[in-house]
Amino acid sequence: MSGRKIPVAYFSVKFVLNKLKILSNVRVVLSHTTHPGNIGAAARAMKTMGLEQLYLINPKHFPDKQAVAMATGADDVLSNAIVCSSIDEALQGTVFVAAMTARLRDISHEVFTPREAMPLLAQHAVKQPVALLFGTEMAGLTNEEMGKSHVLVRIPANPAFSSLNLASAVQVACYELCVAMDYAGFQLQQPAVDLAKHEELERLYIHLEEALKQIGFFKTKSANKLMLKLRRLYARARLEQEEINILRGILSAATEYNTRLSNKVSE
Amino acid sequence: MSGRKIPVAYFSVKFVLNKLKILSNVRVVLSHTTHPGNIGAAARAMKTMGLEQLYLINPKHFPDKQAVAMATGADDVLSNAIVCSSIDEALQGTVFVAAMTARLRDISHEVFTPREAMPLLAQHAVKQPVALLFGTEMAGLTNEEMGKSHVLVRIPANPAFSSLNLASAVQVACYELCVAMDYAGFQLQQPAVDLAKHEELERLYIHLEEALKQIGFFKTKSANKLMLKLRRLYARARLEQEEINILRGILSAATEYNTRLSNKVSE
Repeated sequence: MSGRKIPVAYFSVKFVLNKLKILSNVRVVLSHTTHPGNIGAAARAMKTMGLEQLYLINPKHFPDKQAVAMATGADDVLSNAIVCSSIDEALQGTVFVAAMTARLRDISHEVFTPREAMPLLAQHAVKQPVALLFGTEMAGLTNEEMGKSHVLVRIPANPAFSSLNLASAVQVACYELCVAMDYAGFQLQQPAVDLAKHEELERLYIHLEEALKQIGFFKTKSANKLMLKLRRLYARARLEQEEINILRGILSAATEYNTRLSNKVSE
Repeated sequence: MSGRKIPVAYFSVKFVLNKLKILSNVRVVLSHTTHPGNIGAAARAMKTMGLEQLYLINPKHFPDKQAVAMATGADDVLSNAIVCSSIDEALQGTVFVAAMTARLRDISHEVFTPREAMPLLAQHAVKQPVALLFGTEMAGLTNEEMGKSHVLVRIPANPAFSSLNLASAVQVACYELCVAMDYAGFQLQQPAVDLAKHEELERLYIHLEEALKQIGFFKTKSANKLMLKLRRLYARARLEQEEINILRGILSAATEYNTRLSNKVSE
C-alpha cells in the first residue's frame, strides 16, 4: 500500500533517553523579560520539546502568577528556573551560545537559520552545556549579549511583520533543535574539539582589552565598537581552551615586553 | 574565509511575491476556540509567516479585546477573519486539508510530521485553496473534523508533555510551511492532478452513505464508524473530480439496479 503510513513510536527507549540527556545540556536563557506570561508560555514551549533548563536574567516580574497560568503544566520548569543577575552568570560553563534575533544587524556575527544552527548546538550539547539566548520582547538582543554569543539565529519571517511572540520564538527554536536531533539520531557525534567555556572566553576578552589599552591602541578608536568586532571574529573561530592559552600567552608576552621597554626608557 | 556567512536578503522580489500569492491560498481554520487570546496570538503567528486567511468555526468569544491585545499588530488578520458556523463552510472550496493533532489515534488517517506534510500542502496551494485545521485547545480534533481532512499532522513532542499552546502549534505549522516553500523555491510545481473540492467530496460521502443504507449494508455495523473508515480510505487516495464522478456513477447505477430489482420483486 504505497503512500500509506501507519503512525509508530519511531524512537527506541535508548534513543529517547539519550536525547533527553543531551537536551538537559541545553539552557534557554531569557534576558530581561518584561511580561511574566511570556516566561510561563516559554516554559511550556520548552517542556513540550523536552527542554527543562530555564535561566532568567533580571526578569521584570518573577515569580508571578501569570507565569504559572501560562505554563499550564510546565510549573516544574518555572520552579526550577535559575534567576541570574548578569548574562555572565547565566552563560557560566556553556561552550556554545546561539542568540535568537529578529533583525539583520549592521555589525553582525554569523547569522544562521534555525535549521542550520540547531545541529551545531545539538552537537556541542552532547558533551557540555550550551545556551539558546533570547533578548527582551521589544528591543531584542543588546550588543553586549551579541558579543557573548557564537552565532546569531534568525527565524525566517514575513519582511513586513517579522516580530514573533517570545514564546513562539522559543517554540520554533526548541522544535528545530528536537527535529535536528531526530534526524541526526544515533549519529550525533561528539564534537571534534572541546570549545572553551564562556568564562574563559570572557577572561580572554578582558585580557585583550587591557593589553590593547596598555599599548595605546584605543586612542583614536572606540574601544567598545572595536571589542565587539574582535568578539565577532573570535566567536566565528570557535576557540578551544588551548588556543585561549596561546592567545593569552601572546598578550602577556607583549605587555611584559612593553613594561620592560617602558622601564628601560625611564631608567 | 570558510565558515563565514554574511546575511543577505536571500529571496528575490519575484520569489517573495510568488510565495505570498501561494500563501494567500492557505487558510488557517481554528475550530471552536475557547480563549480569544489564543485567536489573537494565532493571528500574530500567522502574519509573521506571511499567512493572512483566518477562518473561525464557532469561536466562543469573537470579536474580543483579548484577541486584539494578543494580535499586537496583526489586527488586520483578525478583522478580515471569516467566522463560520460549520466546518463545511470553513473548508468550502479547499482541495487539501491538513489537520493538526497532538495525539496518535486509534482509527487514524495518515499521520505526517510537519516537515513531511507542508511541502504537500504548499504544492496544492499553488493552484487552489488548502486548509490547515486546528481543533479546540482542550479536546483537539473531533472525529468529524478528522474525517474531513486528507492528512493528520503531528508535531513531534515530548511524550510526557506533548500539548503545545494553540498559537505555538500555529507558529510551528506556518513556519514549516514557509521553510518548505523556501527550500522548494521556484521549483514549486503545479500539482500533477486537480484534487476534488471539499464540497464535492462531501457530496460523494453523502451519496455513498445513502447507497449503503439502501442496500442494507449498515444493518449490523455502526454507520458512523464505517463512514469514518471509508473517509480515511478516500482521503488517502486524494480523489480527483473525475474519480468522484466515476464513483458516484457506480453508486447511482447500483442503487438504480437495486430499485429496479425491488420493483420487479414487488410486481
